[in-house]
Amino acid sequence: MYLSRQDIEKTDRIKRLNIINSVSGIKPGNLVGTKSNQGQSNLAIISSVVHLGSNPAFLGFIVRPGGEVRRHTQENILENGYFTINHIGTDFIKNAHYTSAKFDHYISEFDACGLTEEILHDFHAPFVKESPLKIGLKHVESVDIKSSGTTMIVGQIEHLIIPDHAINDQGYIDLGASNGVGISGLNSYYQLTRITDFPYARVEETPNFTQ
Amino acid sequence: MYLSRQDIEKTDRIKRLNIINSVSGIKPGNLVGTKSNQGQSNLAIISSVVHLGSNPAFLGFIVRPGGEVRRHTQENILENGYFTINHIGTDFIKNAHYTSAKFDHYISEFDACGLTEEILHDFHAPFVKESPLKIGLKHVESVDIKSSGTTMIVGQIEHLIIPDHAINDQGYIDLGASNGVGISGLNSYYQLTRITDFPYARVEETPNFTQ
Repeated sequence: MYLSRQDIEKTDRIKRLNIINSVSGIKPGNLVGTKSNQGQSNLAIISSVVHLGSNPAFLGFIVRPGGEVRRHTQENILENGYFTINHIGTDFIKNAHYTSAKFDHYISEFDACGLTEEILHDFHAPFVKESPLKIGLKHVESVDIKSSGTTMIVGQIEHLIIPDHAINDQGYIDLGASNGVGISGLNSYYQLTRITDFPYARVEETPNFTQ
Repeated sequence: MYLSRQDIEKTDRIKRLNIINSVSGIKPGNLVGTKSNQGQSNLAIISSVVHLGSNPAFLGFIVRPGGEVRRHTQENILENGYFTINHIGTDFIKNAHYTSAKFDHYISEFDACGLTEEILHDFHAPFVKESPLKIGLKHVESVDIKSSGTTMIVGQIEHLIIPDHAINDQGYIDLGASNGVGISGLNSYYQLTRITDFPYARVEETPNFTQ
């Protein structure tokens, strides 16, 4: 199937959303946890978390100003600077999916979607107890991406909780063993199966692919 | 396993790279194809492609100024504005991985890694013939992320090629059926198996999770 820019523009809106949200490839399934200064918790499913640096350890994710759920997340982060990123596990995909419904601001998605708030290390933002891998971050920067009208929220990792059985001595994390979830488009969820590892690629150790 | 910010800073560099590059969750496996105005092709493995908008259709990816391979990619994009994003298929993971070796600038990673340049629709940047899903993009913006010293390259989709058997009438793309690949960390590759879909989440249709 071939689509030009013009074909994409002419495609029905919902179908276009489905297609274009899928073509970047598999996306990481995460829940972003925040809390207002008045104590109202919020939880939002996010599929745009991206690695930005290891030292300092920075992650970012994309918010769309129009989005209801995302607005509460962004407001809380701008208010106090704290958020958590929690991997979605294969055993609570349905709960995670419905955090994207537009609940009123006084309703916590934790309660509405049957997930459990967990306070760890006196961190202001709530973690998701059910999540296998949990990250506490402090907001360091919001970067406007003008062309698309979106914003990247950047945070530095303050706390990191990884299941012992999914990490080895070298620091490799097996996302299959930790029950991590991938997302394509807006609605499809994937199980992850690790199939191969390769060493750091050096020119002098590159296999002869021309044979 | 628990790591504080201080623990992360004290971790051995390679182990820290492995850990922090994995904690964002599964990453999409893509190859970015570019060509200099002098006709030198370049191909780089990138795991940071992110969806930014559907209308216009925008994708972005992260470049680190220090990175050798990434530098050539960025130079070519700044020179002429064109690049391709090509999904890595499960049948050529090894070829794709070794594009990250620091080949001299006069060597095309297509040649060195046994992959085939494909010119489609008179587009300046080369596609990867072996790739199941191919996207041609025009550069629209480079956004500096100051805290991490990285840059997001944003492009608008001009051409989109999707395997017929992997897309349905509603525009859902099955990344398992299209042999898409996920990456964790710098070296681990995953197969994707679609396990469930849910409808667009509405408050009034949210299951009662409290029962």
